[in-house]
Amino acid sequence: MTAPDDDPLPPTIEWCGDHIRLLDQRHLPGALNFLSVRTVEDLAAAIEDLAVRGAPALGVAGAMGVALAYTLGSDLETAAARLIATRPTAVNLAWGVRRAQAAADPVAEALSIRDEDVAACRAIGIHGATLVPSGARILTHCNAGALACVRYGTALSVIRHAHAGGNPVSVWVDETRPVLQGARLTAWELRVLDIPARLIVDGAAAAVMGAGEVDLVVVGADRITANGDVVNKVGTYGLAVLARHHRIPFYVAAPFSTVDPATADGGAVVIEHRPVEELTTIGSTRIAPEGVVVENRAFDVTPQALVTAYVTEGGVFEAPAELIAGAAARNRSLD
Amino acid sequence: MTAPDDDPLPPTIEWCGDHIRLLDQRHLPGALNFLSVRTVEDLAAAIEDLAVRGAPALGVAGAMGVALAYTLGSDLETAAARLIATRPTAVNLAWGVRRAQAAADPVAEALSIRDEDVAACRAIGIHGATLVPSGARILTHCNAGALACVRYGTALSVIRHAHAGGNPVSVWVDETRPVLQGARLTAWELRVLDIPARLIVDGAAAAVMGAGEVDLVVVGADRITANGDVVNKVGTYGLAVLARHHRIPFYVAAPFSTVDPATADGGAVVIEHRPVEELTTIGSTRIAPEGVVVENRAFDVTPQALVTAYVTEGGVFEAPAELIAGAAARNRSLD
Repeated sequence: MTAPDDDPLPPTIEWCGDHIRLLDQRHLPGALNFLSVRTVEDLAAAIEDLAVRGAPALGVAGAMGVALAYTLGSDLETAAARLIATRPTAVNLAWGVRRAQAAADPVAEALSIRDEDVAACRAIGIHGATLVPSGARILTHCNAGALACVRYGTALSVIRHAHAGGNPVSVWVDETRPVLQGARLTAWELRVLDIPARLIVDGAAAAVMGAGEVDLVVVGADRITANGDVVNKVGTYGLAVLARHHRIPFYVAAPFSTVDPATADGGAVVIEHRPVEELTTIGSTRIAPEGVVVENRAFDVTPQALVTAYVTEGGVFEAPAELIAGAAARNRSLD
Repeated sequence: MTAPDDDPLPPTIEWCGDHIRLLDQRHLPGALNFLSVRTVEDLAAAIEDLAVRGAPALGVAGAMGVALAYTLGSDLETAAARLIATRPTAVNLAWGVRRAQAAADPVAEALSIRDEDVAACRAIGIHGATLVPSGARILTHCNAGALACVRYGTALSVIRHAHAGGNPVSVWVDETRPVLQGARLTAWELRVLDIPARLIVDGAAAAVMGAGEVDLVVVGADRITANGDVVNKVGTYGLAVLARHHRIPFYVAAPFSTVDPATADGGAVVIEHRPVEELTTIGSTRIAPEGVVVENRAFDVTPQALVTAYVTEGGVFEAPAELIAGAAARNRSLD
């Protein structure tokens, strides 16, 4: 297994004392640029514009945003409210913000959250790798990789740890419209990590499953509710239905910080609708007619019944009750 | 119902005596350009590059290509072989080419095929409209509209005739990656026809179905095999699985010329793989890393068991045997 210091992927987010350094995901795969964020407003804009995204990374970013406000002597509640308002669906963002805000030293707390995330993602990979049959052809959606966290990722940590353990896995990468996190980010990460991968359009997932070319599906999550429903990037629910139809295991990899025991089920989660331009233009190219009505819901809800198991830093859980109990025990240990 | 002369959409393909005039679908929705095709090679290139596409339109284009070779005094078999080789999956192309080649007057035969296609698409719409509940929210994939035929379309003819009959339908338009025929072509047609429509990414179809916002699915077909399997744009099979999971009717609208009784089932159909660039670039924007491995299968196979009914110019058939018998009777009447 690759040690952090040998990681060929740069960290997604770093605390630099008086600013936050973000790997700017808007420019990938074309350019590897970094963004220096010095104000809460600049961080909020970076989150809204997806320069940084992914539930665990947003948790760390939110905490560092509060840390930034603290070092600047700004009002913490104003900063917290602004950051939380940027994206409503992923639970980690509010969780990280509130944890840093409640701490005596928000900077130290943000660094703790960062370190916990790195450790959790490694543990997710180690636990998840035990679920991967030799030579498995694994389908994933969106980007639940290092870029969605600080290092390693969640779903991609499972794949990466299986690969590092000598398992000759290969990956089907859904391109993941509209923002193309699969094509732009996951395909890039897997290239850097030298893990065999094939890029497909989202609509081709059923065909490759039907052809018997998928052995398991693993995705990340933006929020897991008390009953085990999974809120994740739009397209996830369809994959879960297709996996069930084809009798393929469907795994959700996420840290305990993604579990939201305060929300009963997926129906109670606010689903973010994002700008119509994500569907009407790519770069300078217009791909839909002027005046078209667009519905751009960024997430969907996968019912618990379609999830084979949840892969967390505390192990693999088939029953949502065990997942919730594990997350609760973890949160108590942090108190 | 709109009469042909009042059609707000221009014809997809026209015979102009010494050339073929194509509505160049590569430039939609940005520009409405027409292409004058004067040689078989230019037509073959236009087909390969998707200036003209859609199974019924390819049948007419193929026949007109043979007519062009005939008027130019070229070898018909050479022309036929070149045209058929352009795209392997849609059965109409070879069917139109061979029918024109076998005729005493290929020009007259090509014009007959064109007129039959217009009549068939109207009849498909009239039959299909009877299946559409009042106010139905209809999901469609790719473009099975006028642009895929000469006029009216197949799946969109059903929607258009329901709408023209006073049914307040609305349409969910899958954008249909990678070539975005839904976003670029179907959304454009529905705008011109003033039929309410909402554009979604392909991955969102499951979410709108799960939310109870889809009453039926209707798609076109590139080939229907002897057992009733449907070969159509990649993504169709997944929609059929999702429709079954949500107990939503799944209709396939196609003329008898799309039926291929000589091929036993979908597993025997050559599935076209198209250039990787369709997934790696849009316009001048690179959307996947250099060196990424792409699998770009353009079509998939929907098993007969997932099809609620086939909508043809001869009526609506639930059983594939009736569909095949109807197509055979139609072909005998043409002999």
